[in-house]
Amino acid sequence: MTAAIVGVDVGGTTTAAGVVTRDGDVVVDESAPTRGKAQADPLAAISALIRKVSDEAGRTWSIDAIGVGVPGPVDAARGRVGEPAIHVPELAGRPLADELTAEFGLPAFVDNDVNALALGEWMFGAGRRVRSLVVLAAGTGFGAGIVLEGRLVRGAVGFGGELGHAPVRFDGPRCWCGGRGCLALYASGRGIVDSARARVAGRAQAPLLKAAGGDPMGITAPGVFHAAAEGDSVAASVVDEACQALGAMIGTVVNGLNPEVIIVTGGVAQSLAPLEAKILRAAGEYAFPRALAATRVTIVPGDKRVSVRGAAALALYERAMKNKGANS
Amino acid sequence: MTAAIVGVDVGGTTTAAGVVTRDGDVVVDESAPTRGKAQADPLAAISALIRKVSDEAGRTWSIDAIGVGVPGPVDAARGRVGEPAIHVPELAGRPLADELTAEFGLPAFVDNDVNALALGEWMFGAGRRVRSLVVLAAGTGFGAGIVLEGRLVRGAVGFGGELGHAPVRFDGPRCWCGGRGCLALYASGRGIVDSARARVAGRAQAPLLKAAGGDPMGITAPGVFHAAAEGDSVAASVVDEACQALGAMIGTVVNGLNPEVIIVTGGVAQSLAPLEAKILRAAGEYAFPRALAATRVTIVPGDKRVSVRGAAALALYERAMKNKGANS
Repeated sequence: MTAAIVGVDVGGTTTAAGVVTRDGDVVVDESAPTRGKAQADPLAAISALIRKVSDEAGRTWSIDAIGVGVPGPVDAARGRVGEPAIHVPELAGRPLADELTAEFGLPAFVDNDVNALALGEWMFGAGRRVRSLVVLAAGTGFGAGIVLEGRLVRGAVGFGGELGHAPVRFDGPRCWCGGRGCLALYASGRGIVDSARARVAGRAQAPLLKAAGGDPMGITAPGVFHAAAEGDSVAASVVDEACQALGAMIGTVVNGLNPEVIIVTGGVAQSLAPLEAKILRAAGEYAFPRALAATRVTIVPGDKRVSVRGAAALALYERAMKNKGANS
Repeated sequence: MTAAIVGVDVGGTTTAAGVVTRDGDVVVDESAPTRGKAQADPLAAISALIRKVSDEAGRTWSIDAIGVGVPGPVDAARGRVGEPAIHVPELAGRPLADELTAEFGLPAFVDNDVNALALGEWMFGAGRRVRSLVVLAAGTGFGAGIVLEGRLVRGAVGFGGELGHAPVRFDGPRCWCGGRGCLALYASGRGIVDSARARVAGRAQAPLLKAAGGDPMGITAPGVFHAAAEGDSVAASVVDEACQALGAMIGTVVNGLNPEVIIVTGGVAQSLAPLEAKILRAAGEYAFPRALAATRVTIVPGDKRVSVRGAAALALYERAMKNKGANS
C-alpha cells in the first residue's frame, strides 16, 4: 500500500473530499452538501466524506494524514476555525483538527481554503518551482493565499491573505465584512450581484432584470457577465468595475510583494477568463511596468479537484515544515 | 579592535553615513549633500562619507562590511540600483555594491532604503523579537519594507514593499510614478503639498496660501499639517484624506499580511504622530477587528541615525542569510 492524504474542501454549500497522492494526483473524489438532512453539523458531512473516499481508495492507498480547507480565517497552529466564519458559521471557534484526529486517529491540519489552494498551486500546479506566488480566489466571497520565499503567509492570528477584504477604494462604501471599499464589493460573486441589483432597482425595462424574469433576486454573477457580453450597459458597468478593481489589487500585489506568479481563480474565474486582456490592461494602470513584467498573471477557473488537492498539500506542507523544525 | 559596519543612507538631497556596532549602536555619524559642489556623482559623496566615518571610528572599530540604502527598487542580489530611481536618478542601473567593494575592498550590500530600515527595526528597533513587521515610511515620497517569517520580502525583481505606489483608490487620479490612485498621492509629503496647492489655486484669501506669502510654491507638508491644526478647512481636508488613505493601507496590510508590528515612520511621521488616534480609527474602518488587535501599530518620527542603523542591519542580515545558505 502506498501512502496518501485525504484532502477536504469545506464550502458554504458543498463540501468535497478526495484521496491525493504525494505527487498531487487526486485518485478518488466525492462531494456532498455541507449540511446533511439528518445531521446539520458540517463535521458530520466532513467525516462521512472522509470515510467514503478512504473506503473507495481501498487497499491501494494507505491514508496517513488529513488536510482541511475552510473559508475565512483559521488559527492553523491550533487547527481551530476562526471568526468571522461567514460561510460556515457552525464551525466558528471549533478545534476542527483535534476533532478529526480524535475520530480518525490521524494527524489533521486545518487552514483557510485559499491558503490551502495556494499551497496546492505552489507544490503541484501553476506555481511549481517558484519561491513566491499569490492566489486571488473570486467565488461567492473573495479569498487569497500568499506564499513568499517558500512559506505560507499566515500572519499573527491567521488573517494572512485576506486580500478580498483589503480596500481598493478608501472612500468606498461599507462591506458586509464590516470593512469599507473592500475588493470583494467589486469583484466577488456576491459583490457583483449586489451591484447589479442596486443598479437595476426600479428599472423594470433593464435587460438584466428582464432576463431574470423581472425578479432582482434572480440575477446571478454568471448572468451579469453574460448580459455584459451581450451589450447590456448596466451589466457592462458592473463587469468593468470588477475588472478595474481586480486589476488594482493585482497592481497592489505586484508592487507590494512582487511575486513570481499571480493566479486568479475561484468560481467567478470562469467568467473572468475571457476578460483576461482587460484585467491585465487594468493591472498595468497600477503596477510598475518592470515589476509586472516579472510576474506571470494567469486566470484558472476554479475546480473542486484543485481545492481538494490544495487541502492535501496543506498536510504535506505542515509535515515538511515540522521536519524542518521551522515551526518550532 | 571590535568589528563594526558602515551604514549609508542615500537620500534625494542628503546622504548620511555612520559606524554601527553589531548591537545596532551608531557610534559615529555624519551627513553631506548627495551631490557635492566639485563632484555631482552621488558615489563621490557616498565614498567621502564612508572614508570620513571610518576615519573617525579610528582605532576602536574595525570596519568589515558596508550596507547602503537607496530610494526606489534595487536588485539586491546583484547590488544594482533599479529603475525608476526617482530620487537619485544618477544611480539608476549602477552596480553600486561592486563599485564600493572595488574602492574599499570590503563586502558591500545595497537595497531599498525602507527595506534596510525595516531590517534595522526588526533587528534593533520597535520590531525586535517579532517574526513579521511592515514599515510604512512617509517622506517626500512613500516607501515601505516588509519582513515576514523572519525574511525580507524583496520580490522577483526588487519591488517588494513598494506599497507607497499601491492603489488605495482604484478610480483615483494618475500618480507621478505612472500608476493611479497610489497611497503616495494622499499620504506622502509630495502628495500632500500637491493636493494643498491644487485646492488653493486661484483662492488668494485661502489662509494656507497667505501663510505661504501668497506663493503656492511656498506651501510645505509641515505647513499643511500646521494650518490644519489651526483650523484651516482646506488644509484639514488634505490632512483628513492623508489619515484616511494611510488608515486604508494599514487595513490592507493588517488583513492581507497580518504582521505583528506596523511602524509608520519617515519625515512626515513627525506631523502624523499627533494624529495617531485618528489614523488608528481610520484603520479600524478597514481592518478585521481581531486582526487589528493582534497588530501593534506605532508611529515613530524618522531619524537619520535610524536610517543609518538600518543600512548597517542590511549588511548584517545579508551575512547571516549567506551563512544560513538560504540565499543559495
